[in-house]
Amino acid sequence: MSDNVFAEVSEEALLKIFTLPEAPDSTLGRIEKDLSENLMGFLGEHIVAREKPLHEIEHNFAASEVPELPRYVSDHTDFLLNNLVAHSVHTSSPRFIGHMTSALPYFLLPLAKLMVGLNQNLVKIETSKAFTPLERNVLGMLHNLVYQRDANFYQRWMHSAQHSLGAMCSGGTVANITALWVARNLLLKPSKDFAGVAAEGLAAGLAHYGYKRLTVMVSERGHYSLSKAADVLGIGRKNLIGVATDDLNRIRMDKLREACDKVAAEGGKVLAIVGVGGTTETGHIDPLTELADYAEEIGAHFHVDAAWGGATLMSEKYRHLLAGVERADSVTIDAHKQMYVPMGAGMVLFKEPSMVRGIEHHAEYIIRHGSKDLGAHTMEGSRPGMAMLVYSAMHVMGRRGYELLINKSIEKAKLFADMIRAHEDFEVVTEPQLCLLTYRYIPAPVKQALQQATPEQVKRLTPHLNALTRFIQKRQRETGQSFVSRTKLTPAHYHREPSVVFRVVLANPLTTAEMLADVLAEQRAIADQAMSLRGALHTEMRELGLLARHA
Amino acid sequence: MSDNVFAEVSEEALLKIFTLPEAPDSTLGRIEKDLSENLMGFLGEHIVAREKPLHEIEHNFAASEVPELPRYVSDHTDFLLNNLVAHSVHTSSPRFIGHMTSALPYFLLPLAKLMVGLNQNLVKIETSKAFTPLERNVLGMLHNLVYQRDANFYQRWMHSAQHSLGAMCSGGTVANITALWVARNLLLKPSKDFAGVAAEGLAAGLAHYGYKRLTVMVSERGHYSLSKAADVLGIGRKNLIGVATDDLNRIRMDKLREACDKVAAEGGKVLAIVGVGGTTETGHIDPLTELADYAEEIGAHFHVDAAWGGATLMSEKYRHLLAGVERADSVTIDAHKQMYVPMGAGMVLFKEPSMVRGIEHHAEYIIRHGSKDLGAHTMEGSRPGMAMLVYSAMHVMGRRGYELLINKSIEKAKLFADMIRAHEDFEVVTEPQLCLLTYRYIPAPVKQALQQATPEQVKRLTPHLNALTRFIQKRQRETGQSFVSRTKLTPAHYHREPSVVFRVVLANPLTTAEMLADVLAEQRAIADQAMSLRGALHTEMRELGLLARHA
Repeated sequence: MSDNVFAEVSEEALLKIFTLPEAPDSTLGRIEKDLSENLMGFLGEHIVAREKPLHEIEHNFAASEVPELPRYVSDHTDFLLNNLVAHSVHTSSPRFIGHMTSALPYFLLPLAKLMVGLNQNLVKIETSKAFTPLERNVLGMLHNLVYQRDANFYQRWMHSAQHSLGAMCSGGTVANITALWVARNLLLKPSKDFAGVAAEGLAAGLAHYGYKRLTVMVSERGHYSLSKAADVLGIGRKNLIGVATDDLNRIRMDKLREACDKVAAEGGKVLAIVGVGGTTETGHIDPLTELADYAEEIGAHFHVDAAWGGATLMSEKYRHLLAGVERADSVTIDAHKQMYVPMGAGMVLFKEPSMVRGIEHHAEYIIRHGSKDLGAHTMEGSRPGMAMLVYSAMHVMGRRGYELLINKSIEKAKLFADMIRAHEDFEVVTEPQLCLLTYRYIPAPVKQALQQATPEQVKRLTPHLNALTRFIQKRQRETGQSFVSRTKLTPAHYHREPSVVFRVVLANPLTTAEMLADVLAEQRAIADQAMSLRGALHTEMRELGLLARHA
Repeated sequence: MSDNVFAEVSEEALLKIFTLPEAPDSTLGRIEKDLSENLMGFLGEHIVAREKPLHEIEHNFAASEVPELPRYVSDHTDFLLNNLVAHSVHTSSPRFIGHMTSALPYFLLPLAKLMVGLNQNLVKIETSKAFTPLERNVLGMLHNLVYQRDANFYQRWMHSAQHSLGAMCSGGTVANITALWVARNLLLKPSKDFAGVAAEGLAAGLAHYGYKRLTVMVSERGHYSLSKAADVLGIGRKNLIGVATDDLNRIRMDKLREACDKVAAEGGKVLAIVGVGGTTETGHIDPLTELADYAEEIGAHFHVDAAWGGATLMSEKYRHLLAGVERADSVTIDAHKQMYVPMGAGMVLFKEPSMVRGIEHHAEYIIRHGSKDLGAHTMEGSRPGMAMLVYSAMHVMGRRGYELLINKSIEKAKLFADMIRAHEDFEVVTEPQLCLLTYRYIPAPVKQALQQATPEQVKRLTPHLNALTRFIQKRQRETGQSFVSRTKLTPAHYHREPSVVFRVVLANPLTTAEMLADVLAEQRAIADQAMSLRGALHTEMRELGLLARHA
């Protein structure tokens, strides 16, 4: 309908776009039908397989003026299909196994549309009403998943105006920042003539409590959002201290103690110890119980960044991998990762319902004192009702449904590791603990040579392997059927030499073993074509005198 | 389809919810059709008119355990309809004029569904591809709207990896925090042996530059998000200094100078001056040019919070009200306010494309150096592709379409002010400059008496008027046809006595003059029933000896 009302800019025409829906046979009407009936088909058909160079795409998004005249919805939709959708990323493809974005259950799409249509603003009850108790309920359920307190606890605190069991956030970064914000404000709390860091600022807080600096401790595998948090909160990135990890990418307790002792000896104070509940790069989990013990010992806030791995708590079989998380003061979990909810659903949970007092804010026209407005305890203000999608996913799939998904993902990762090991010219670099693993392509003679290579030899060979891995990953992304990501690790068994690896996340339930076999076949085929890179590697091998031995 | 696959938790059943859509005749299928064909009808039909007490709603959201077993989609959808949708807020109703959430153009709903279905993650190109240039384009267009630089400027900077013309955010709060974060990091930048506040922290930054404290100056009408920003960034809420305003709720330049002089005299440094481009409570605009001059004079960052009013720049007729905004170092605009985009679309724009360097972050597996990944320059990490909806709204409506909407809104507010003035027992408290005004109910004799009342008399009468206004607002919200919000102001003509007022925002294009007349009629009817509150007011008038004069 609104398609043809824009012959001129009239008030009548504008009112129509607020009152009349798209006709079912319009371009947008047809798209909507396609999305409802066959999302995967729609995405498969409209997203082009072959990658277009970014600078060519940018050419279509170069006009810098707000368009003067209105445009037909159908024309605009055609433009979007050809220039935006066509060159977006098929994140729900079962062959897109490079990042943490997976397929979505179909029922979430119409529910997401309902959420957008309702257009609630969760900052305050006056613009959200039932969405406020719903969001508190979601936080309560996730709190329960982590902390497993009794029914009385939740009855008492879940809907209490002065308390919050957590905060919904746009994502894990805001969740991590919020957790450390709370920790900072609780540590440098009001006392005597000091009104607290929230009121007086960080410099005054440090001076009042006599700390030269605050530090946050996390393994060197910690997520970069913690660095953002240290920056934003005024702590300073240098004071986010990356602690060395063991062979399984877990924080080394001895190194942590050493680092914390040093901070204290220099007059600093450890604000928080962050345990990682599934590192972004390798999927490994820190020893959370030991971290909890130690945080308690030195009086530091214990935060667990389980943005990605937190959903594992729904698996009875694998829940034990996160043992100790229930002792964390705060925990980050992203529902848009392994909870299969659309982008934009992060959460931070707080062990004690009163912890959010440290960041409480009020205003006259909303979030007045005593109101249950969620804005009083969140970093963000106006926010959409994403909690509804988390709530729905948990109810429709149930804990057992999630358990099945999570178990299958982990088992698929273990299967893929076995498949990789079965190839003589690939190697697993980090084993999967959850559904994430890293590996690389490595010609068999080089693999053998590296087993007993000296640090110097590793140092000279690795850059060639890195170039090869980079080449394969890029080429596969650009022209292949599959997408894996890449990162750089420092494996202990390769003398900590920075090594580029493929990284796969196997959370998409539609990914099959055949597809995984295809991924490897495609990578080997690309490697076979990389003549000059292979040549350089070969030359290096020869110069190192490593060819003869394995010829 | 997926409705009946959950008889038991099987892998097959789970795969189905990722592959098979809802049947058109399922509950969710029908809802989707209703939403597409008649959103307003759907909302009008499903959201109950009479308000249910919050504690009763909470009763339905009290279960604290993640449900163990899966549930039929249709059963769950019924639950949502009866318990969530029914008791949500009809924010797009033309009679919902209490907050900044308005109706949405219909075409945005199917587009929002497309956005959710694509499920892109804007943190990096690998999970967003064309969405990245699109988002940069949106920021470029908004930058152009504010700063009006030439085509070369945008060609050079819009898609430059090391630069950003702004940052998309979940909302205005994150936008304001980001702006002040940038300002803080630029002020306390690296120099000589100092690595900058981002690296070394705020206390070290203040020490290095010899500042006792940083302050942010804003009028007393500034949004509470600035207080959150001051807290989060370690500046301290006390150092967000609220400057007195004039009769039109604009910052008083003399008071600002006084306050800044005091900060400097005490060894502090004014980090930023924030101009308000449409206050949340009264809609008034600060004298932005004067603020720009003064910020330049004292070397402070000049930020304009135009979260709500920024869209006015699209009106040739009213653009002049924001004159001076083009001199701001940074500007916040929320597309989910007067740009009619669904919740979750905030933006901050930066005058200079290199300013974001102050907050640049990188990681190994994404947002590597030199990449165009948006995550390098935003506070948030993973984020949805909301920019697509902003882009679409600007293209389908065009600048002229927006101008029409904005002009009509402002004129409607002026009309409503006239309507209020025509009633002897109402009074306009703040005149509309944009489409926002405040007023209150006040019996005619009290209104007359207040004209020449002493400060003491105003002090004694006002609490009674406040109670009456509160009562009317609450009752109307709970049982009436309309919703207006309320806030507390300190009007100069009432000796700064804290006065509760009704607050209306007239951005919904579907709101008619008849509806506005109904709002007043309803309020008067409620006031007529408020016997005890009116009695108390009457008694106070008599005790003050004010009745006789006006009997």
